[in-house]
Amino acid sequence: MFELIKTDDSSRARLGRLTTAHGVIDTPVFMSVGTQGSVKALDPRELVEMGTQIILGNTYHLNIRPGMEIIRAAGGLHKFINWPKPILTDSGGFQVFSLATIRKIQAHGVEFRSHLDGSLLFLGPKEAMAIQAALGSDIAMVFDDCPPHTSTPRELRAAVERTMRWAGECREQPRAAGQLVFGIVQGSVDPALREHCAKALVAMKFDGYAIGGVSVGEPEPEMMRAVEITEPFLPANQPRYAMGLGTPAQLVELVARGVDMFDCVLPTRVARNGTAFTRKGSISIKAGAYKADFRPIDETCDCYACRNFTRAYLRHLLNVGEILGLRMLSVHNTRMFLKVMEEIRAAIGDGNFAAYRKEFVANYVPTQKVLLARAAAADR
Amino acid sequence: MFELIKTDDSSRARLGRLTTAHGVIDTPVFMSVGTQGSVKALDPRELVEMGTQIILGNTYHLNIRPGMEIIRAAGGLHKFINWPKPILTDSGGFQVFSLATIRKIQAHGVEFRSHLDGSLLFLGPKEAMAIQAALGSDIAMVFDDCPPHTSTPRELRAAVERTMRWAGECREQPRAAGQLVFGIVQGSVDPALREHCAKALVAMKFDGYAIGGVSVGEPEPEMMRAVEITEPFLPANQPRYAMGLGTPAQLVELVARGVDMFDCVLPTRVARNGTAFTRKGSISIKAGAYKADFRPIDETCDCYACRNFTRAYLRHLLNVGEILGLRMLSVHNTRMFLKVMEEIRAAIGDGNFAAYRKEFVANYVPTQKVLLARAAAADR
Repeated sequence: MFELIKTDDSSRARLGRLTTAHGVIDTPVFMSVGTQGSVKALDPRELVEMGTQIILGNTYHLNIRPGMEIIRAAGGLHKFINWPKPILTDSGGFQVFSLATIRKIQAHGVEFRSHLDGSLLFLGPKEAMAIQAALGSDIAMVFDDCPPHTSTPRELRAAVERTMRWAGECREQPRAAGQLVFGIVQGSVDPALREHCAKALVAMKFDGYAIGGVSVGEPEPEMMRAVEITEPFLPANQPRYAMGLGTPAQLVELVARGVDMFDCVLPTRVARNGTAFTRKGSISIKAGAYKADFRPIDETCDCYACRNFTRAYLRHLLNVGEILGLRMLSVHNTRMFLKVMEEIRAAIGDGNFAAYRKEFVANYVPTQKVLLARAAAADR
Repeated sequence: MFELIKTDDSSRARLGRLTTAHGVIDTPVFMSVGTQGSVKALDPRELVEMGTQIILGNTYHLNIRPGMEIIRAAGGLHKFINWPKPILTDSGGFQVFSLATIRKIQAHGVEFRSHLDGSLLFLGPKEAMAIQAALGSDIAMVFDDCPPHTSTPRELRAAVERTMRWAGECREQPRAAGQLVFGIVQGSVDPALREHCAKALVAMKFDGYAIGGVSVGEPEPEMMRAVEITEPFLPANQPRYAMGLGTPAQLVELVARGVDMFDCVLPTRVARNGTAFTRKGSISIKAGAYKADFRPIDETCDCYACRNFTRAYLRHLLNVGEILGLRMLSVHNTRMFLKVMEEIRAAIGDGNFAAYRKEFVANYVPTQKVLLARAAAADR
């Protein structure tokens, strides 16, 4: 299922290949987020053209709208959204704890009110896995308890215990044909908790392991630390997935820490605010500096937007509220993230990852705007 | 410049070919509206794929944002927006009289306040033609006085006199290389005024003639009548353009009345509200009836949306506010309008237009929603 092709000499970076029911994924991989069954502003053709290997869907959102009756009738999520390549579905745990109004955490799940209309819903290991089986995703995630960054040690321990117990319940549920299931390690920045949780999950023998409890508002050093204290306890011959991360430079640094899979709303979210990623950080295309700048966003980029449009035109589109503006920034940003992953894979393969990492991180200066957008995880 | 290929035996319909600086246009033609330099929600590749021959731009809007300094620096509108095919620019007359707050109508133009920020601007024959020369459109329109449907006879006469005088001034202004200039006939539903205006403009020898003062809130019979009382006075060997029209069935009927060119915001505007055009009228894709309808919008349609997505999925996208939903309805609706024009041209060419017209109009039942959307001309 997962083939470890090469490990980097200079870091914990790995080159791999993950085989799923809908195709093979080269890792490290960036997964575009299609929370509600659409990667925001992009169509499947654009996604395939820019090298997308796998997209995400979300149990919490899809279960509310359009609801499972419709997706079942369509023949599963791939058919409903017409996406032929792999799909990973998040379990809804993160959303229940971040979006919904929790009414009661119970032994086998959470009773909560929909963030949309306040209706009373219940999601637990059994429900989340049944929904994901019906969605027919290639990779399903266990239903976890993802506490906020500000939790007390006592709350953290409770969340980890619950996460482990629920993971065990998820492990026993029926799956779709060929569906892989990944465990999610919680434990914040507590080394003992992370180790405890990782070991318990590994003993349950999942198909892959995610590092959760990151991208929950924590500062970057804590996020890196959470990964560093978890990764050593994850099996080398299985894929590791850091959930909800990150900026381009963070992706490079997380690959160096042994992570194979990433997802993040950043590329499409900041696009809708007029922010474009470059090798040097991000720029606000709406800025007056670009009003007569007839260069593409990035002269080295091969995306449709950079091959066809200037900064001046994109700025105009964004300023007058034309949808084409945010579409083209979504295209560019998503391609930029995918291109960085392609470069990372090539660098590991060629034995040049140390040099690539050094240069990339030195050139990339993140803006506060992007860091804040990453912290706001509402539409993950 | 304009070649009249065939005239229909059963009606005044014509098959023609209009040669412009950026290419040849087969008529009758539907022109998609790109008011601010973008056909709303669509990219140039999509437009070309669906058979778009020519798009519109608008003097009033582009002059305000991004402003002519930037479009001049870009090398004209084609280069600024990266559209290689023909562009027709409206003169801004319609917008000055419908969008702006008029301060004073003067001898050589109109002093008005921008609908955006209230800044004081002036547009007249000289300014409108200078802007259109700088935009470098293939077809420029004269600056006319387009009075509302509710004008008094006295106001109408004044508007027609002003329109004729300003047309003469426009005729004398410098043009871009190869730029065609069309006159605009006003006169509402007054046969004598329409005849007077048409004859005066024809005497000035424009490259084509538009029927203006339609799509200003009038009922359909009056719109048809305005065309019928104007068309006999327009030269057979030159193109005729009915401005701001119409629904698919109206296009068929207007072709039958001798019109060669059309533009309308309907396909993309109603798409953004979830309305899709079919051969039988229009449907609201958000309706509950489509929640588990896994057919395309139109099983006979060859657009990207119909080849890839179901009504159920599009309904979901629209209901959750995903941009892909309005994108795909914009694709479908625009392709539907272009396909109808292709069929009209084929029918005239094959001598089957009478049968085509009869069947199309019998099947097509317009909804009140679409008729109201047509009446609201604000973003034309």
